[in-house]
Amino acid sequence: METKLQLLSLTILFYTQSAHAADFCVADLASRETSTGYPCKSPSNVTVDDFVFKGFTAPLSTSNPNKLSLNRAFVKSFPALNGLDLAAVRVDMERDGVVPLHSHPYSPEMIFIIEGTVTAGFVSGLDSNVAYIKTLNKGEMMVIPQGFLHFQANSGPGNATIFVNFNKADPGVQFITGALFRNSFPTWLLEKTTGISQAEIRDLKNLHGGSG
Amino acid sequence: METKLQLLSLTILFYTQSAHAADFCVADLASRETSTGYPCKSPSNVTVDDFVFKGFTAPLSTSNPNKLSLNRAFVKSFPALNGLDLAAVRVDMERDGVVPLHSHPYSPEMIFIIEGTVTAGFVSGLDSNVAYIKTLNKGEMMVIPQGFLHFQANSGPGNATIFVNFNKADPGVQFITGALFRNSFPTWLLEKTTGISQAEIRDLKNLHGGSG
Amino acid sequence: METKLQLLSLTILFYTQSAHAADFCVADLASRETSTGYPCKSPSNVTVDDFVFKGFTAPLSTSNPNKLSLNRAFVKSFPALNGLDLAAVRVDMERDGVVPLHSHPYSPEMIFIIEGTVTAGFVSGLDSNVAYIKTLNKGEMMVIPQGFLHFQANSGPGNATIFVNFNKADPGVQFITGALFRNSFPTWLLEKTTGISQAEIRDLKNLHGGSG
Amino acid sequence: METKLQLLSLTILFYTQSAHAADFCVADLASRETSTGYPCKSPSNVTVDDFVFKGFTAPLSTSNPNKLSLNRAFVKSFPALNGLDLAAVRVDMERDGVVPLHSHPYSPEMIFIIEGTVTAGFVSGLDSNVAYIKTLNKGEMMVIPQGFLHFQANSGPGNATIFVNFNKADPGVQFITGALFRNSFPTWLLEKTTGISQAEIRDLKNLHGGSG
Amino acid sequence: METKLQLLSLTILFYTQSAHAADFCVADLASRETSTGYPCKSPSNVTVDDFVFKGFTAPLSTSNPNKLSLNRAFVKSFPALNGLDLAAVRVDMERDGVVPLHSHPYSPEMIFIIEGTVTAGFVSGLDSNVAYIKTLNKGEMMVIPQGFLHFQANSGPGNATIFVNFNKADPGVQFITGALFRNSFPTWLLEKTTGISQAEIRDLKNLHGGSG
Amino acid sequence: METKLQLLSLTILFYTQSAHAADFCVADLASRETSTGYPCKSPSNVTVDDFVFKGFTAPLSTSNPNKLSLNRAFVKSFPALNGLDLAAVRVDMERDGVVPLHSHPYSPEMIFIIEGTVTAGFVSGLDSNVAYIKTLNKGEMMVIPQGFLHFQANSGPGNATIFVNFNKADPGVQFITGALFRNSFPTWLLEKTTGISQAEIRDLKNLHGGSG
Repeated sequence: METKLQLLSLTILFYTQSAHAADFCVADLASRETSTGYPCKSPSNVTVDDFVFKGFTAPLSTSNPNKLSLNRAFVKSFPALNGLDLAAVRVDMERDGVVPLHSHPYSPEMIFIIEGTVTAGFVSGLDSNVAYIKTLNKGEMMVIPQGFLHFQANSGPGNATIFVNFNKADPGVQFITGALFRNSFPTWLLEKTTGISQAEIRDLKNLHGGSG
Repeated sequence: METKLQLLSLTILFYTQSAHAADFCVADLASRETSTGYPCKSPSNVTVDDFVFKGFTAPLSTSNPNKLSLNRAFVKSFPALNGLDLAAVRVDMERDGVVPLHSHPYSPEMIFIIEGTVTAGFVSGLDSNVAYIKTLNKGEMMVIPQGFLHFQANSGPGNATIFVNFNKADPGVQFITGALFRNSFPTWLLEKTTGISQAEIRDLKNLHGGSG
Repeated sequence: METKLQLLSLTILFYTQSAHAADFCVADLASRETSTGYPCKSPSNVTVDDFVFKGFTAPLSTSNPNKLSLNRAFVKSFPALNGLDLAAVRVDMERDGVVPLHSHPYSPEMIFIIEGTVTAGFVSGLDSNVAYIKTLNKGEMMVIPQGFLHFQANSGPGNATIFVNFNKADPGVQFITGALFRNSFPTWLLEKTTGISQAEIRDLKNLHGGSG
Repeated sequence: METKLQLLSLTILFYTQSAHAADFCVADLASRETSTGYPCKSPSNVTVDDFVFKGFTAPLSTSNPNKLSLNRAFVKSFPALNGLDLAAVRVDMERDGVVPLHSHPYSPEMIFIIEGTVTAGFVSGLDSNVAYIKTLNKGEMMVIPQGFLHFQANSGPGNATIFVNFNKADPGVQFITGALFRNSFPTWLLEKTTGISQAEIRDLKNLHGGSG
Repeated sequence: METKLQLLSLTILFYTQSAHAADFCVADLASRETSTGYPCKSPSNVTVDDFVFKGFTAPLSTSNPNKLSLNRAFVKSFPALNGLDLAAVRVDMERDGVVPLHSHPYSPEMIFIIEGTVTAGFVSGLDSNVAYIKTLNKGEMMVIPQGFLHFQANSGPGNATIFVNFNKADPGVQFITGALFRNSFPTWLLEKTTGISQAEIRDLKNLHGGSG
Repeated sequence: METKLQLLSLTILFYTQSAHAADFCVADLASRETSTGYPCKSPSNVTVDDFVFKGFTAPLSTSNPNKLSLNRAFVKSFPALNGLDLAAVRVDMERDGVVPLHSHPYSPEMIFIIEGTVTAGFVSGLDSNVAYIKTLNKGEMMVIPQGFLHFQANSGPGNATIFVNFNKADPGVQFITGALFRNSFPTWLLEKTTGISQAEIRDLKNLHGGSG
């Protein structure tokens, strides 16, 4: 009994009514963002529900030409990720669905095949340009180095679901299709800097809503 | 045609036969570890299979008192994680299975419920000691701040499978049960530093293989 | 004389009336905390006294069962630490005093024995669970890896004083006693996730003010 | 005189014959690379010439379709950059020369126009796809966020020279032309993941040396 | 045509009207600085001109004893550098001009000689105190480790221009002349802590505007 | 009893004979240093004594003009600091002793006055050059921002002892006296870059062992 009494005071000395901001920093999205994230929501207003994300329980619609749904759990939709250097995406693809070539400026990614068969790949840098491509089955994982172009395509007969992880609360995303063909980047300059013909560029701009 | 020719030389200028070590650094596990990971396997020996991990396709055995299987994809089992600040664990629990209280010194974690119903929780720091506990269903996620004690328990009627992510290639792990009751930490000192009675400690040491 | 004149203008070119925020960022504790600390107090309001901490000149009371005083110089009590990745604690223990088992999620620690004889130790991770324990005399130091459970106990005949250093402005702290026995963590779940018997848990909750 | 004598001993206490490895870590390129760089060349073998780079005094050949020369001062050609998180490229373009669209996975970049007139730009991420394009004159600078696609084109009547800076010893580089059209990435899959027509892809693969 | 349609929806799913703060964080200088920089200007108010810096097109005046002009592109004058860990200085020296001994607490530096002949050097740390000094010609570069004393002097017959790079948005700067001789640091204490005679210190304080 | 059995298997599943390198990375000083530290000593050869440092139990000799002893616990003398980003110095000064002006390129510092009365101070950067100087008594602390010039002087009637902490395993050190007057830095160039007269420089070089 003596020993147990001995430890009693410690918790008394330090007891306060709410968690300390040093323990976690759930984003207050109404405040101004900095280059390292958001100011913290007051710990006394944080509950367990702040740490739970329910946006992955079902895909968004896949009724689109890509037959693709991307649910994002980045800091803006899951504020508890603020300062934790973690984020995730749930990817669902119908048969023949695809996540087109894209890159993440601030994070590598790790993909885990929850359902279906997926062909995934990335291309290495300037001095080799090697395409590392692999067909993955349910339960298999693949990692993609930070900042390099990569894709996933449903290569199985049914639907596919992928769980994707990042080590930043917002890894950033850039798709080739959007970056090249969905803005006013001048067509002649796009040809000059990619080598793609102006005719092809104009076709793709028409499809993606670009101009110029 | 002229434009396309124009870009040809660039790749010629820089072309080399293999990927550059700047692109990725797959661990050469046979070399000496440093505090920031392993030396890189030669890029010319790296193939797409280095980036693929097949250790999560099935659980390990759950025929144990915890009814628990933990498959770890840390840098030692998945060398491509070296330098990528990513890692994962596949957790499988039979009915009533449990991942006992533990902490990760080097990473927060994010859990995604792939199958079943799981009660998960963590405790905040000294000044509040709040227990944040929640029952999660399939498709729900929860994040746990770095270094704090947390657990997962199967609270559903069937099996449960969790996918766990980290932002280090090896997050470190410390279980309370192992740290306290599976070594030669003197029983009287353990009582003095935890308040748990010596009788209780001796019982638990007997179970976990501790001495002293 | 010519040379000396030569350098005069440089300071004239850049002279301003107060220190630049690039030099230091003393916390403005009245502002919102972010995951990387506090906004800076205006440099023109910073004086040398901001860089000085007087909270360690004497222990707090040790008239408690742990016979322990912990003075903390973390960013909240010593705002100059903001952005410097440094913090400290002064520990005083009467004879038989103890700092119970705890961990710091965000920093390793280094202890320096200023007075007395102290037995200190930590336990390594899951794959070894080794207890590294040592009795230290005045003037000796010990380092503890980040995030692992550790303790200090006064093992000498008189008082003991320790100076503890961290490499974060707030390293975070979690004590086993507080985390397990001073909140509403359900008793049956605590037994399930630690293996400690419910009878023992109830005894300890009574002592530490827990419920459930 | 007394004061001057007073300081003499300090240097005597610590005098050693060569610089300490804590001061700098010039890469020993013959050793194994890690994810954080190379082991250090012995400080006693380091001379001032290790810190000097002479590869930028003249452009490489611009007699190529891009009318472009890229001299790289990355850690492999300038070993003193090891551990310093700095690198540079000298870019020279003849009239109508171009640096095609590319990205750097590990670093933002800052360009300084040393000579000529250059049109430079980058495209922002998925949610906006904005093309930020500007014509820069001699002496002007522009910064490009990390990991996003960007280009430079000589838009003046004469030659252009740019000095480019990075904050990593090797920022990594990926060109769209090389990544898409200079490897065995299957043509049908490239169409599927970029939307570019197979006919256009085959044309570009022919030019850039790709197959598949 | 079918393939092109297939990718259309992706950009529609995610299209928003302005760039995302995850892409860049141009400093809002009117907001409170933190130890990691400034809050972000709203992305919708950011234009390409935010990424362009025109302060380097000409030197400031060199009509001063140092015959020196230092144009600084740090975050306060070039807000786009916020969060990018890049900065630069344009140095111009007339014949016999000099950048006196100084150090940068937060960044190494890389200098590129744009025009003229410059003698540059740094001194290594306590255990060696080696002076690494080199005369550099146009087009040559030199790197200086973080935090060590260094200088540049025009050692050619004409003007010299240097482009200096850093890996922080504000590297900090401390000149020996200003630190020692342009404030109220007591003369007797300065002698005691540098060994320089009081007579010499008084002379230099008179020149640089110091007192005490 | 059932619950206790339930947790038994976990430690069995993971039990190995020695600590994991993920837990700590004690430096193997015989191996090649990298810019981030040393390779790890094999965990199976690490004992508790690796974590203990006994070099601070007494000062080194103070029988020198500075009346100063500096015991350093940096990674080279205390290999357990490798990868922990912690280091310390014990400073002892006899009456009138002094730690001359110096800076640490890689770490701020925090000083704790263990014995005596100490006047300490630092100077801020270029735009202010403010000297922040304070006399500290036993038990008081002061922090010094990274990379700025600072000093400590015994200003009391007896001996003084200071415990100094850093947040790097080797913070680097540069003393003005050694950097300027204990090497072959040409006297005329030193005058040009500091403004100190050649006569004074020659006097100081004679005292400190410099030449040139």
